[in-house]
Amino acid sequence: MWEAIEPVGRDAGTGGYRRFAWTSQDHDLREWFAAECAARGLDLAEDRMGNQWAWWGDPDAAARIGDKGVVTGSHLDSVPAGGAFDGPLGVVSALAAVDALRERGFQPRRPIGVVNFVDEEGARFGVACAGSRVITGVLAPERARGLTDAAGTTMAEALRAAGRDPEAIGPDDEALGRIGAFVELHVEQGRGLVDLGQPVAVGTDIWPHGRWRLDLPGEANHAGTTRLGDRRDAMLACAETVLAARAAADRHGCLATIGKVQVQPGGVNAIPSHVTAWLDARGADEAAVRRAVADVAAHVESGGGEVAEESWTPTTRFDATLATRLRATLAEGGQADGGQPDGIPMLGTGAGHDAGILANAGIPTAMLFVRNPTGISHSPAEWAEENDCLAGVAALTAVLADLAGED
Amino acid sequence: MWEAIEPVGRDAGTGGYRRFAWTSQDHDLREWFAAECAARGLDLAEDRMGNQWAWWGDPDAAARIGDKGVVTGSHLDSVPAGGAFDGPLGVVSALAAVDALRERGFQPRRPIGVVNFVDEEGARFGVACAGSRVITGVLAPERARGLTDAAGTTMAEALRAAGRDPEAIGPDDEALGRIGAFVELHVEQGRGLVDLGQPVAVGTDIWPHGRWRLDLPGEANHAGTTRLGDRRDAMLACAETVLAARAAADRHGCLATIGKVQVQPGGVNAIPSHVTAWLDARGADEAAVRRAVADVAAHVESGGGEVAEESWTPTTRFDATLATRLRATLAEGGQADGGQPDGIPMLGTGAGHDAGILANAGIPTAMLFVRNPTGISHSPAEWAEENDCLAGVAALTAVLADLAGED
Repeated sequence: MWEAIEPVGRDAGTGGYRRFAWTSQDHDLREWFAAECAARGLDLAEDRMGNQWAWWGDPDAAARIGDKGVVTGSHLDSVPAGGAFDGPLGVVSALAAVDALRERGFQPRRPIGVVNFVDEEGARFGVACAGSRVITGVLAPERARGLTDAAGTTMAEALRAAGRDPEAIGPDDEALGRIGAFVELHVEQGRGLVDLGQPVAVGTDIWPHGRWRLDLPGEANHAGTTRLGDRRDAMLACAETVLAARAAADRHGCLATIGKVQVQPGGVNAIPSHVTAWLDARGADEAAVRRAVADVAAHVESGGGEVAEESWTPTTRFDATLATRLRATLAEGGQADGGQPDGIPMLGTGAGHDAGILANAGIPTAMLFVRNPTGISHSPAEWAEENDCLAGVAALTAVLADLAGED
Repeated sequence: MWEAIEPVGRDAGTGGYRRFAWTSQDHDLREWFAAECAARGLDLAEDRMGNQWAWWGDPDAAARIGDKGVVTGSHLDSVPAGGAFDGPLGVVSALAAVDALRERGFQPRRPIGVVNFVDEEGARFGVACAGSRVITGVLAPERARGLTDAAGTTMAEALRAAGRDPEAIGPDDEALGRIGAFVELHVEQGRGLVDLGQPVAVGTDIWPHGRWRLDLPGEANHAGTTRLGDRRDAMLACAETVLAARAAADRHGCLATIGKVQVQPGGVNAIPSHVTAWLDARGADEAAVRRAVADVAAHVESGGGEVAEESWTPTTRFDATLATRLRATLAEGGQADGGQPDGIPMLGTGAGHDAGILANAGIPTAMLFVRNPTGISHSPAEWAEENDCLAGVAALTAVLADLAGED
């Protein structure tokens, strides 16, 4: 399966992927997904946001007898210059798990669904998990339609260009009502499994995280004629803030990153009159993250700058019962258990996922992480060894078999 | 005259000007210049780069008897969010000086020219004084044509869009051969005249200055999942470099500015894999500037970064004989001399000008600076009081009368 999608959106020079929502790359990946599902005789349906759901068994028939489906999958879009595994590993593993169940003649009692969520990274329109946020009602359709990409194209225009009706998007309780449990398999985005020497972990929670806009004022002036003492250089304020953010994260044991800045006026010979910087902060402990951000805010405000919270998401806990059941299933089958007395590892993550959005919508949700030997993600260096990918598929197969039950 | 050009390219909110070369704003300003010249019966000609030259008297007839013209003027383009005076003050004052000479019935022995140089700021294509650099052969036509703006438009495409033939640009000895002396009047871009309490100064030299591109490497990774200790964050390297540049300038008594940065990949949740920053450094003393840049380069290279010199211009000295003559003329007329025993002030400048390009091309060149009460330039706060503007026009009128001679 990997071969067909390997070249889509790939930069031949860097090997990085650029697969933004509602672009031609995204379209090609959606067509590929539809063809793979058709080849397996799965019934493909789209919800009101265009997320693709492929069913083995009839979820609506199951609903009539009070039963719900077991869904797995992930997303196919990427960040700019992203890696090959973040997203696609979960989709490919889902299809491979279906194949594995079929090969052993498994007949699921509950329907099994495979989902491809659209626009998980939010790389184009700035809102991550837009696909799952819209159908769960967390992202209002009006706001989604009005989001713009770097070229000024709105999501409404992008949907129309992709042959879709932007007015049709919105919450979709029907699609959500078919999900009894959701399990997302994902490449790990850190070094947790590398350090533990294990191929697969069960997810516990998504760390609290937020974004803040820092506005740092200066005074426009000519770089060649203004004495150092007469300057109010917003770039200096930015430099000090970047270092203050790192120090605050260190101090409080969490993560802080400034990955995006906008400099006004941005000329080589112009003293910056304004810098806008975005702070991303996360950590296992909510209070620690809050303390680090408060330190950065105090620094910014002491220099006459302003801080605005653009988003804040508290800790998202995955379903504990489901996680325990996954862990028991995997321990039983011997998968992913390197013989450690503690059994299958449990890991939290600092990254957001559609699984987190569904968990917050009240759907029993779990995650499986596959070891990433580089620990690097959102980069061409993101990686998973074949044996670990196979361990991931085996784990997902066992979990689906357990949750769907055999007829 | 000011009224007609006051709204062109002006942002109603900030009052800042955006008048980039070969845009519709530039076109409107060129049309305005042509109309003002036509209203005065001046003969307008363009050189091979599209700089506009308006002549009172026939420079080619003068050339036949071994004489050359006296030229004044400046430019009408601006930096992003620029002020109203940088450039336009020199053009408007030139036309006002012609009016003043006419009103008193002056008949010039040598022809007087008024010039509007195109693309002085280099705000669009990154090379300052592109208009004068091309006609003096300092900027090769092939290189000029290939320069790109932020939208990826080449100068060749921009010229074509403006109805021009990009293949026709190049050195223009004929246009340069008409200039016996060039005097550029400009709003001061620092606080020299404010500190001296004088309205007008004669320029001595343009400080040595240069631009360096600093490439700071990092490693792309996910902002939410990568431990602080595992990061190679190019934004941290950038922050340290900004502070190092400021410290080096302080230490060596010169100016250093980082006004433009590009961050890769530039996502809020992505650890920067690369930052490119541009260093602008200048000062009265060439060796001091070199020492400051060497300190910054050592800092960058110690962190695995690279430094490339994009431009370097040594000290440009204006014609000393011409400067002395201007000073004597002004002292004689009592203009701009606040009664100081030292007479008319002489000032160097850290800003580049077309006058510097012509001086380096061997043309006797001088500058007049008009007091800027804010000391601020390249910003809407750039200013000149009406009385000081009139003092500038009076000074320029006296200088033109002296240099052109009366018939």
